[in-house]
Amino acid sequence: MNPQILLVGTGAVGGYYGARLSQAGARVSALCRSDYDLVKKNGIAIRSVSGDYHFTPEKVVRAVDECRSEPDYIIVATKVLPEINIPDTIRKKVFPKTSIVLLQNGIDIEEPVASAFPENELISAIAFISVSRPEYGLIEHRDYGSIRLGRYPSGSSEKIELLAGLFRKGGVPCEIDSDIVTARWRKLMWNAPFNPISVLAGGADTREMAESAPALMLARKVMEEIRTLAEKSGHPLPPSIIDGVIESALSMTPSKTSMLQDYELKRPMEVEAILGNAVRIARRYDVHVPHLDSLYGLLSLVDKKNRKV
Amino acid sequence: MNPQILLVGTGAVGGYYGARLSQAGARVSALCRSDYDLVKKNGIAIRSVSGDYHFTPEKVVRAVDECRSEPDYIIVATKVLPEINIPDTIRKKVFPKTSIVLLQNGIDIEEPVASAFPENELISAIAFISVSRPEYGLIEHRDYGSIRLGRYPSGSSEKIELLAGLFRKGGVPCEIDSDIVTARWRKLMWNAPFNPISVLAGGADTREMAESAPALMLARKVMEEIRTLAEKSGHPLPPSIIDGVIESALSMTPSKTSMLQDYELKRPMEVEAILGNAVRIARRYDVHVPHLDSLYGLLSLVDKKNRKV
Repeated sequence: MNPQILLVGTGAVGGYYGARLSQAGARVSALCRSDYDLVKKNGIAIRSVSGDYHFTPEKVVRAVDECRSEPDYIIVATKVLPEINIPDTIRKKVFPKTSIVLLQNGIDIEEPVASAFPENELISAIAFISVSRPEYGLIEHRDYGSIRLGRYPSGSSEKIELLAGLFRKGGVPCEIDSDIVTARWRKLMWNAPFNPISVLAGGADTREMAESAPALMLARKVMEEIRTLAEKSGHPLPPSIIDGVIESALSMTPSKTSMLQDYELKRPMEVEAILGNAVRIARRYDVHVPHLDSLYGLLSLVDKKNRKV
Repeated sequence: MNPQILLVGTGAVGGYYGARLSQAGARVSALCRSDYDLVKKNGIAIRSVSGDYHFTPEKVVRAVDECRSEPDYIIVATKVLPEINIPDTIRKKVFPKTSIVLLQNGIDIEEPVASAFPENELISAIAFISVSRPEYGLIEHRDYGSIRLGRYPSGSSEKIELLAGLFRKGGVPCEIDSDIVTARWRKLMWNAPFNPISVLAGGADTREMAESAPALMLARKVMEEIRTLAEKSGHPLPPSIIDGVIESALSMTPSKTSMLQDYELKRPMEVEAILGNAVRIARRYDVHVPHLDSLYGLLSLVDKKNRKV
């Protein structure tokens, strides 16, 4: 039988991957907030480099308890922001059989959900995709699109294999990673320097950052700090990863980071998920992270000002 | 006899203090660049909290050798930017009797001039003033206005006393400081954190910075690094200075830093004079200054982008 999926959040990432799972035959309901009316009426149009698709969720709801079914998976694809309480949002639809999937950015984002639902399987998932939602109900998929997932804090399961199979059936390159936390640290090697720098530099794209010696030097220092934190918390990354990330930055086509997109649209930025959590991990292990501290201090102020505008 | 002064740069600071010296009876000629036509025709209008004044330079020139007299003082009041070569600009009017006054921002800005003219007296001067040039030929003086000066690298002289006397006669509170380099470090305690943060935070005024805990924490870290550099280079400052600067930031009426004003007007910022030189001093003494490095890396990129716009 096709699994019941409750998708929480139909922004760029949620809308895109929800559509792929629906294409693969899963029964996907969607929790919407600001885009509720539009998605309820029209569904979600996906304009993708790999072909357009129209995603009509089985049910569109404003609160999870409007769904009648017991979901096999709840996929949380909201941004990670202090004002979004994920356990409270999903609690009424977390049944013993429900696996919770966090398809979100950042580091150490699993803990609040893991401790709220200790009996449920928690799946951590990372998207590698260039996608945006220019308007409600419309998703533009420009490049990439793979996903990497695994059981939190480690391992895999049959249900994870089932989900990975569904993603693949929907055309999503998907890898199961039994050490998903290390994978998050690896992604943070890119996100922690380049997302903040792109905003703090007054709106620099990946090319402008890669061509600026001072920006790259700072990025390198931030990556060294992240690598130290990863190692301290039991997820060592090889030293060569830093050059690898820099090289990929240099060879990329110019694009705007997700944080820069949020900033320009006056949306809240994932400052805490990407920088705040890293800084808190540093405090926990008593590691000195002055470059991360600097970016965090500046970006907190920018985010606060940006939300007020 | 009233001294001959050649004023290089008639921006906000140069225009204001040149006017005061002229009021005091000095014979002030002015070197102008972009504002040459306007100043030549109309002079400079000073709108000041302590009364308006019209400053008509004795001569307005485009290059120093258009002046016929041998100046007793050359007062350099340009911004400190890599593209402005001060020794080349003034060379033809530096006579044995000429004292060179650097009325400019930043740290370690004296060296290039000191080594170009080793036989001349070099006077280093710091302005504490809230002043702007909303348009060519118009200076708005809003608050403060004192000046502190001394011989570089230390000491005083009769000519310095004469100049201080002229400033005072023109209504400028003026103190001679026989340890002017320490005074520059003291001013840098304010400039090094708050000028860059105001720009990098997306345009924060002094109040917004003072009310942001992350911004203040970062400012404090930067000040600790500056204090270490000052001490290493032989100009120790008391630890209490940090709380003092923070308190003054908290009690100030909200205003825009000079760097933020430059940024908003798409003018070059004094990144090198304020941050670059501090970072280079850190390298010289092998001091680790990660917070200064972070601000410097980001601000270099912002300045480069801002100049291109």
